[in-house]
Amino acid sequence: MKKIAVLTSGGDAPGMNAAIRAVVRKAAYHGIEVVGINHGYEGFINGSIEPLDLGSVGGIIQRGGTKLYSARCLKFKEDAVQEQGIAKMREANVEGLVVIGGDGSYRGAMALVKKGFPVVGVPGTIDNDVPGTEYTIGFDTALNTVVESIDKIRDTATSHENSFIVEVMGRDAGDIALWAGLAAGAETVLIPEEEYNLDEIIARLERGATRSKKHSIIIVAEGVMAGSELAKLIKDKAGIETRVSVLGHIQRGGSPTARDRVLASRFGAHAVELLMEGKSGRAVGIRNHQLIDYDMTEAFEKHHESDVGLYTLMKELSI
Amino acid sequence: MKKIAVLTSGGDAPGMNAAIRAVVRKAAYHGIEVVGINHGYEGFINGSIEPLDLGSVGGIIQRGGTKLYSARCLKFKEDAVQEQGIAKMREANVEGLVVIGGDGSYRGAMALVKKGFPVVGVPGTIDNDVPGTEYTIGFDTALNTVVESIDKIRDTATSHENSFIVEVMGRDAGDIALWAGLAAGAETVLIPEEEYNLDEIIARLERGATRSKKHSIIIVAEGVMAGSELAKLIKDKAGIETRVSVLGHIQRGGSPTARDRVLASRFGAHAVELLMEGKSGRAVGIRNHQLIDYDMTEAFEKHHESDVGLYTLMKELSI
Amino acid sequence: MKKIAVLTSGGDAPGMNAAIRAVVRKAAYHGIEVVGINHGYEGFINGSIEPLDLGSVGGIIQRGGTKLYSARCLKFKEDAVQEQGIAKMREANVEGLVVIGGDGSYRGAMALVKKGFPVVGVPGTIDNDVPGTEYTIGFDTALNTVVESIDKIRDTATSHENSFIVEVMGRDAGDIALWAGLAAGAETVLIPEEEYNLDEIIARLERGATRSKKHSIIIVAEGVMAGSELAKLIKDKAGIETRVSVLGHIQRGGSPTARDRVLASRFGAHAVELLMEGKSGRAVGIRNHQLIDYDMTEAFEKHHESDVGLYTLMKELSI
Amino acid sequence: MKKIAVLTSGGDAPGMNAAIRAVVRKAAYHGIEVVGINHGYEGFINGSIEPLDLGSVGGIIQRGGTKLYSARCLKFKEDAVQEQGIAKMREANVEGLVVIGGDGSYRGAMALVKKGFPVVGVPGTIDNDVPGTEYTIGFDTALNTVVESIDKIRDTATSHENSFIVEVMGRDAGDIALWAGLAAGAETVLIPEEEYNLDEIIARLERGATRSKKHSIIIVAEGVMAGSELAKLIKDKAGIETRVSVLGHIQRGGSPTARDRVLASRFGAHAVELLMEGKSGRAVGIRNHQLIDYDMTEAFEKHHESDVGLYTLMKELSI
Repeated sequence: MKKIAVLTSGGDAPGMNAAIRAVVRKAAYHGIEVVGINHGYEGFINGSIEPLDLGSVGGIIQRGGTKLYSARCLKFKEDAVQEQGIAKMREANVEGLVVIGGDGSYRGAMALVKKGFPVVGVPGTIDNDVPGTEYTIGFDTALNTVVESIDKIRDTATSHENSFIVEVMGRDAGDIALWAGLAAGAETVLIPEEEYNLDEIIARLERGATRSKKHSIIIVAEGVMAGSELAKLIKDKAGIETRVSVLGHIQRGGSPTARDRVLASRFGAHAVELLMEGKSGRAVGIRNHQLIDYDMTEAFEKHHESDVGLYTLMKELSI
Repeated sequence: MKKIAVLTSGGDAPGMNAAIRAVVRKAAYHGIEVVGINHGYEGFINGSIEPLDLGSVGGIIQRGGTKLYSARCLKFKEDAVQEQGIAKMREANVEGLVVIGGDGSYRGAMALVKKGFPVVGVPGTIDNDVPGTEYTIGFDTALNTVVESIDKIRDTATSHENSFIVEVMGRDAGDIALWAGLAAGAETVLIPEEEYNLDEIIARLERGATRSKKHSIIIVAEGVMAGSELAKLIKDKAGIETRVSVLGHIQRGGSPTARDRVLASRFGAHAVELLMEGKSGRAVGIRNHQLIDYDMTEAFEKHHESDVGLYTLMKELSI
Repeated sequence: MKKIAVLTSGGDAPGMNAAIRAVVRKAAYHGIEVVGINHGYEGFINGSIEPLDLGSVGGIIQRGGTKLYSARCLKFKEDAVQEQGIAKMREANVEGLVVIGGDGSYRGAMALVKKGFPVVGVPGTIDNDVPGTEYTIGFDTALNTVVESIDKIRDTATSHENSFIVEVMGRDAGDIALWAGLAAGAETVLIPEEEYNLDEIIARLERGATRSKKHSIIIVAEGVMAGSELAKLIKDKAGIETRVSVLGHIQRGGSPTARDRVLASRFGAHAVELLMEGKSGRAVGIRNHQLIDYDMTEAFEKHHESDVGLYTLMKELSI
Repeated sequence: MKKIAVLTSGGDAPGMNAAIRAVVRKAAYHGIEVVGINHGYEGFINGSIEPLDLGSVGGIIQRGGTKLYSARCLKFKEDAVQEQGIAKMREANVEGLVVIGGDGSYRGAMALVKKGFPVVGVPGTIDNDVPGTEYTIGFDTALNTVVESIDKIRDTATSHENSFIVEVMGRDAGDIALWAGLAAGAETVLIPEEEYNLDEIIARLERGATRSKKHSIIIVAEGVMAGSELAKLIKDKAGIETRVSVLGHIQRGGSPTARDRVLASRFGAHAVELLMEGKSGRAVGIRNHQLIDYDMTEAFEKHHESDVGLYTLMKELSI
């Protein structure tokens, strides 16, 4: 393999730039050229590429977002369009592709794989919801952003003895909410993977109020319901006022944490190794603390599972 | 003066603890005792006090919120209630009071002053909207929180080439929005003190789109309208999609910046000096870079004005 | 088991408070009382204890340092002194102990175990050098502090085109240096576990100088040599000037990262479970991403090993 | 004026990029072209320029360091060399220059002014030691970096009940040390502008030790003496052990604070206005909270003075 391409797809995640950098540097180490594809699959089908050398990835390891831009590309589902993209790549002598993104991006990647174009996937999404890997690039940074935000909210919650509902990202996966709940010492966490019990939530709020602790933090993953909706449910059933804070898009940005930069570097470099070994349709991941690769299909056919042990611990510690 | 009290009132602001600490330490330096009043005027009328010594204010200079709690107290408007509070204080040999809060808190303070109880005001509010002083405690911290958040939002805005509307605090005052706009390099800022022009906002968005810069940040102070409302106006008139982020309560919390801690320390110490000099009904402030004191009435009778020079600069730099 | 104690020992690490909190809350969940022992083994032998309830561990999850203080205790090596401590504990009806600290602290703990007093160890040290566990409490926070510091140093290194040597903690273990090197994109990392080659370091510096990149970051773990010593070696051999920055004690402090808080919470809770199960002489750890417990002796008899894969990756990416 | 140049000189400071951006954008607003000069006066004499447009200064407002690089240039003192530089600039149709740097950089600027080349100075240095302006670009960021570092050191100082000496930047000016002392609640501060008293420092350490507070933070500006030297003096005279932390180069870097970005934006834009008005040999500054300009000579002929009021306050609050 003499020349490979790299693109980022789906929602951006802090650490994507570190992964791009690792792809370029690892490839350079082995004398392989790299081109960057802009705007995800959109750029793939248009052949919108630029050469990436050591200089192009200088000073990006600490930057949030993705220098290759990301975009959704609806028409990429069409066979003809995929073939057009592959043709463009072959024209440019690109022999393999690293796709950095979530499980949705893997689905697109597998279409290329089936058409004979070698692709390796790197899990990049703040939601930590790619089946088959314990962590994804961006999760650690997003988690710390959420925890730092809740630390701030707790300042004002304590000062005014208010209770707060904090809505965090996570449409199908509760990892951000659950980990943040543990790390920020929240009283209650609602995640998509577990049933919630409104009476229990209210009981907890009331228990706090009768003890010295008059403030309470409830974290709800957006996939369960909106924070404002939960506030209404609580108000209607128990007459308790809560304030709502929707953390929103700050969760996607920021300079990646050390952990995310290391993970991204390992994943990016491993993806290049896999392409060099002639592998395709594989996703890199971390399992049992070991760098692994596995069938990319697994990532979008299986379901992400939350860590039941953490959920139980959360409940016990928020006694 | 042998014994004074301190309370925090209104919305909490980072740096209030640093001000409390300065009151206690400056008083200790002069051999004056200090008691803390919990829950603002609520505690004043109930005589809910606790002695504060050097040890009680150890390790709080870097903490957000207020260790004395803050609360609104509607019944404090009544004459009888105010007199009851003064009686409680006199009973406890408290001879003067430092009130840390916004202009609303000053109003309550003046009622006590008129009844012969010495009070000095310290401006503590993130909104920077207390007339008579260039800065209030908490503004610098809130501003930095907003700017760091917008830096994060810009990461994802750039990566996806989206435009964002960021709603920040400021019901009557645009200082947070305006300063954050300058500091974060926003394209447009809407503040309560200045008329906005929807056509101009849209023209700016479209101009960006035709240049290489495809993302844009619009900051709107909550006092102008909700971020979601602005997004709708833009969508309806020009068909342009924007995403909305409401920063909310994270703006109130966090460890105070160096600037806020120094300002709070100076204000707190100066308030003690004023009480020692037998002054009452005075507010401390900073004007022309100098520590000053002025008639507290000024703070709630005049209107806060935004810095027209900054607003003009903002417009010129966001060309 | 009705009553247990907890102490922190050795160098303090961010997240120790989160572990203390988890011990108290997990115990409370099971109806077990907890006392805190101040000043490590010093307090153990003096019976310097205080009851810890839910209120005592409120608002500490985000605090650096340890609320139970830490200290070295030389005379704890003596048999009589250990027995005196055990007697004090039994007097106070304490039936078991959780020790949070490094492998040195485990050695002391094993002495108590051998005398029949149940102890469970929790690995708390920024160095990540406790054999038997993949991570220790505090490592992630220290790592992020180092990486953020190097990001800052790189700003000035780039602006002035200087090369910097950054000395970080790690007497016997290079984990901080190695991970920070990967995460900060350093050009060279020197760790105690691997031989360094001065000629190679110099060649790298010169290679950078001939390319467009005129600055370079070298990270050296204190266990290899002092930063100033390395600067002298380079100056003497190649005549190249470097600047030295010793990060020092800032690496021990700061609010723990989300990862450290979660790890600390899991470890603390698991330690309580082990004591409840009647186990003693066990250390908690994380291995293959799973919470485990193992013979505490292993932690101080084996040697910590660095991750060879990471070291190789570091070298390849800093091409 | 149709075309101007901008350069950064001396030690780099966070916010220099924001100032460069403001120069370019303000000039663009008025239809003036801008070129950037790389490597300070070195680039000036070599005519090392590059055009700067809106795109070139995109995304730099939040970056530390200076994208134009900075360097010392010894030969710039020579008349012939200065004239060579002016000739190069005139050749490139550059009609005026904005110099961002400290008072040393102003000295070079005045040489150009005397030779008829219009220059306006912008104070950029973390030391806050440019006479004639209350604040310089970079001071606020450096100050916050120092305060956050001391907050971390205090964690470990408290946990181990140690005393720490923290050496900070400031060869001739004590502003960083003094403000940081107030903001971090240090027990003692040594600045170049004020005599220190070793007996008093020791008395303070001993007083702390007899009270419950067993740790202490002493801040020393490098211009007074090295931290290690102070530690030796204390050890020799009183036998008290202290630990030393030298903050070093992390003080120069980092994303600028909101305050520094706003100040830099105002300064940069004002410098362009002055050049447009045909002014030369002027420095921009902030005095009495107002943007001003003054004779640049004042900046290097006068001495920076520390704020006596702050120093007194520091002493009183660290009772």
